[in-house]
Amino acid sequence: MVLEPISSNCSFGGWHRQYGHHSSVLNCAMRFALYLPPGASAEAPVPVLYWLSGLTCSDENFMQKAGAQRVAAELGIAIVAPDTSPRGEGVADDPEGAYDLGLGAGFYINATEPPWSRHYRMYDYLLEELPALVEAEFPVTGQRAISGHSMGGHGALVIGLRNPERYRSISAFSPICNPVNCPWGRKAFSAYLGENQQAWRAYDACELLAHFGHRPQPPILVDQGDADSFLVEQLKPDALTEAAREGKYPIRMRMQPGYDHSYYFIASFIEEHLRFHHSYLVT
Amino acid sequence: MVLEPISSNCSFGGWHRQYGHHSSVLNCAMRFALYLPPGASAEAPVPVLYWLSGLTCSDENFMQKAGAQRVAAELGIAIVAPDTSPRGEGVADDPEGAYDLGLGAGFYINATEPPWSRHYRMYDYLLEELPALVEAEFPVTGQRAISGHSMGGHGALVIGLRNPERYRSISAFSPICNPVNCPWGRKAFSAYLGENQQAWRAYDACELLAHFGHRPQPPILVDQGDADSFLVEQLKPDALTEAAREGKYPIRMRMQPGYDHSYYFIASFIEEHLRFHHSYLVT
Repeated sequence: MVLEPISSNCSFGGWHRQYGHHSSVLNCAMRFALYLPPGASAEAPVPVLYWLSGLTCSDENFMQKAGAQRVAAELGIAIVAPDTSPRGEGVADDPEGAYDLGLGAGFYINATEPPWSRHYRMYDYLLEELPALVEAEFPVTGQRAISGHSMGGHGALVIGLRNPERYRSISAFSPICNPVNCPWGRKAFSAYLGENQQAWRAYDACELLAHFGHRPQPPILVDQGDADSFLVEQLKPDALTEAAREGKYPIRMRMQPGYDHSYYFIASFIEEHLRFHHSYLVT
Repeated sequence: MVLEPISSNCSFGGWHRQYGHHSSVLNCAMRFALYLPPGASAEAPVPVLYWLSGLTCSDENFMQKAGAQRVAAELGIAIVAPDTSPRGEGVADDPEGAYDLGLGAGFYINATEPPWSRHYRMYDYLLEELPALVEAEFPVTGQRAISGHSMGGHGALVIGLRNPERYRSISAFSPICNPVNCPWGRKAFSAYLGENQQAWRAYDACELLAHFGHRPQPPILVDQGDADSFLVEQLKPDALTEAAREGKYPIRMRMQPGYDHSYYFIASFIEEHLRFHHSYLVT
């Protein structure tokens, strides 16, 4: 059995389920969560939204707090929420247990530096291994969208922009827009990728947008709260807007007055993101 | 200052906030959460739904997981979520740290037995002190509804049925319907109220319904999942249905196929509960 069922809850007529599996890319056991809307079947497969969570999160935060299942059930979209890093015995962690490096902080990149390079390959896991598994085991189509929050917003933008033929649409809440220029990103990229900052650019949404070229441009929606305490130092939405202008890639960046960095913000706008993705997934 | 602000998050155009205060009834510091919908003001006060959570919960579980704010914002209803027991240094707890007695397990009753009687008076706190505080400090009307989950469903039924003039409507998810006849209830009532089982009856929804008499009958809606692992041994919805028949009190009991005891169940039906309460709150 490739997948080990861990939990199952009926939700809005569909099913929230957690599964364990061995990841050969990450070289460890992993868990992910799936929401399957009512009516999804081999005869009626549904498109998939991949949701990438932020620092310290697991597969559970989004499924428990975002309130996405109601709209996913209505629209007929599956949601897959992976973990935010490799886990388990033998997986490297920050020696001081910092929340922004190591466990819970994989940054959706392929680490090249020891000790991280042995397990921290979340980019390949998200791009290849997990979708292949999901598409083999569940009644889903190859229509994919990608979204995320904070570190996961960074991940969604980077994975989507580097693979525009694989995702119909991209969205993000409060993404780390320019990790090569903020403390969270510089700390993580130094550790995972080493000091050669050329290598960092492949994982920076601003770099990718500014030099995007002429491939298909999946539509991008970004929501950012203007009361987010990480806005100026870590998230830098203005840099993303500027990079999009430079790369002639139209993106929709919305500043939401009064909202912070929490799941109360995500819950308030997840319906609009799901309807945004749905409009491209089904065409 | 009566209330100490603890946190504040914008949510669906309104505000989720946590406050600390000293409870003279409970004889300790307490925290509660409030959702205030957009537009609530001294000139336009709104009705209030009190939500009572289940075993092990705090003021946070419902606000983070139920997805109620969207509908409360639309309908213009405030929600108050108290803690599930007194807390803090000097507050008695189960000597073995059991999850179903002591901290997180107040059962919404007034304890009469030491050591519990010094702090465990959640019935009076919910009925008198907290509403008085909320109605003095926030732009709300005296229109009240009450709901809850599991132990909190028991609390909502008992407080509502004993005070039908104070609540326009009552609802519950997976309530402990007949605590005098189930292990959770018998353990808690033995500790808090002692071995005289006559005293237990005032806190048993089935006893109250079966002998309700002719006072106003607030409408009651109950949802219960048929895949709930606590259904037969602890929750006993059939006893509630039978007691309602005996007391000639029409209640709406819905068995929901496939649903369990989790917040995935609550989230799936909270919108219907809010619309149910709203229909009575505004008339």
